[in-house]
Amino acid sequence: MAGRTTRRRVQRVTLPGEGRPGGTAERADVLAAEEPLGIRVNGTALSMTMRTPGDDIELAAGFLVSEAIVSSPSQISGMKVCDGTTCGHVDHDELGNIVDVTLGPGVTVALGARRNFLTTSACGVCGKASIQDICSLPEAGVADDPIRVRPEVLASLPDRLRAAQRVFASTGGLHAAGLFTSDGELIVAREDVGRHNAVDKVVGWALLTGRLPLSGCILLVSGRASFELVQKAVLAGVPLLAAVSAPSSLAVELADQGGLTLVGFLRGASMNVYTCGHRVAATAELTARSGG
Amino acid sequence: MAGRTTRRRVQRVTLPGEGRPGGTAERADVLAAEEPLGIRVNGTALSMTMRTPGDDIELAAGFLVSEAIVSSPSQISGMKVCDGTTCGHVDHDELGNIVDVTLGPGVTVALGARRNFLTTSACGVCGKASIQDICSLPEAGVADDPIRVRPEVLASLPDRLRAAQRVFASTGGLHAAGLFTSDGELIVAREDVGRHNAVDKVVGWALLTGRLPLSGCILLVSGRASFELVQKAVLAGVPLLAAVSAPSSLAVELADQGGLTLVGFLRGASMNVYTCGHRVAATAELTARSGG
Repeated sequence: MAGRTTRRRVQRVTLPGEGRPGGTAERADVLAAEEPLGIRVNGTALSMTMRTPGDDIELAAGFLVSEAIVSSPSQISGMKVCDGTTCGHVDHDELGNIVDVTLGPGVTVALGARRNFLTTSACGVCGKASIQDICSLPEAGVADDPIRVRPEVLASLPDRLRAAQRVFASTGGLHAAGLFTSDGELIVAREDVGRHNAVDKVVGWALLTGRLPLSGCILLVSGRASFELVQKAVLAGVPLLAAVSAPSSLAVELADQGGLTLVGFLRGASMNVYTCGHRVAATAELTARSGG
Repeated sequence: MAGRTTRRRVQRVTLPGEGRPGGTAERADVLAAEEPLGIRVNGTALSMTMRTPGDDIELAAGFLVSEAIVSSPSQISGMKVCDGTTCGHVDHDELGNIVDVTLGPGVTVALGARRNFLTTSACGVCGKASIQDICSLPEAGVADDPIRVRPEVLASLPDRLRAAQRVFASTGGLHAAGLFTSDGELIVAREDVGRHNAVDKVVGWALLTGRLPLSGCILLVSGRASFELVQKAVLAGVPLLAAVSAPSSLAVELADQGGLTLVGFLRGASMNVYTCGHRVAATAELTARSGG
């Protein structure tokens, strides 16, 4: 496996202005690594993703949760990643690895309906599909999770996640996903060039350490909240997903359906709560509740 | 087809501080729409992408260019999108459309090798692959493109792209891709929840208006520069790709190989030039060159 970062010579160009002369200087720059990772299940190719190397086993495990293939570690008999050392394929020009997953007895690959959208959609002419056609959520969703979170706690999370982003600090090039307790304590953080991979790494970590479902937890992502991130959160049992940027229309719709609290534009001293707002409660309200 | 945005009631939560009381207020929020789009080629399902509705024909056309399936409009006999009006499937709960593409005589679907990474990679054990295994660039790349661009022009592009982002202005939730002349004039801009889709929409527009290859043009993207965006730029014949944020290691490697000038961290009065820096020239240099 290659490193999470690579070094590269770069021309730094600065325009003249405000007393600066401007000009071009060569300097070393650190880049976030991006390489392909293949996931094979029971010997069959399932997926290929461009990811930042590191936490590959967790990434593959999280992917399996997000595809609703597994929900407990006992459903996986074995996972191994070949880094090229055993077969002698370590070469400067070579990239990428494969994670080989062996599922437990009786566990089958039933990919999310979304991947079959084109063939399953109700109308063969226009392809119109309902939310049910493009994603499969557990029926109960996370609606019953009694977690309550103070806005002050939510507002503190982006700084905490940023502080945990080791690779971002050097490259400025990575998305992050962080899992927090309802009191705002960081449980785990993962980074990747892809937002979805960062979340899969967190979910895979949770699966492999026996923490699924993630009841009572908060998942924070560094970018926008897409439909897919909401799906991943609900499948992992997370009751509250917060994003630093905007959610999409479908993300909100799906969060509503899954009973997930979706917070967006979590920046500075404010935030938007799109769905299941009862979980975001002021301190006074929480005190009253616990008192009652 | 649904609109590019949807409206939604949202709780705006503000923390108390600096004289503000803090509190929760309900208000209307505008969200960027996200819906599935299927692409069928000669009747066979090729791809499904989550995209912001609008410019669907361009998105499908650009996708075909990015997959190295077509490079001129004559290779497409027909494209049509079904919005559900002809088959009667217009329903509040339904999402998504399909674009049906009919290729010209003799044009076949040879998907980029990258999609076959798991089966084509040299070593079946570890999956080690070279860049050649995961993407297919035209042999010549864009190395011969004589375009020269002044840093002042590059520095002006992010503001020009932002000014053209109509949907972002209302939702804050969309990535953008903009095509510019070497003098910094905006040719076309497109937005999408996905960065890749925004670029495909621009490239598809160029294909359908007979502008490919995009020699002498600059492509600016609002986020990071991934491997895939570099691939799309080179396949469209763009000699200079600029990104507001960081590139990945593989993006830089592939740009180098394709003869593409890759600019990252294009913010304020500075930028990093990662590859083919000869195209980014100070005014004095350009004058000297044209004088010689």
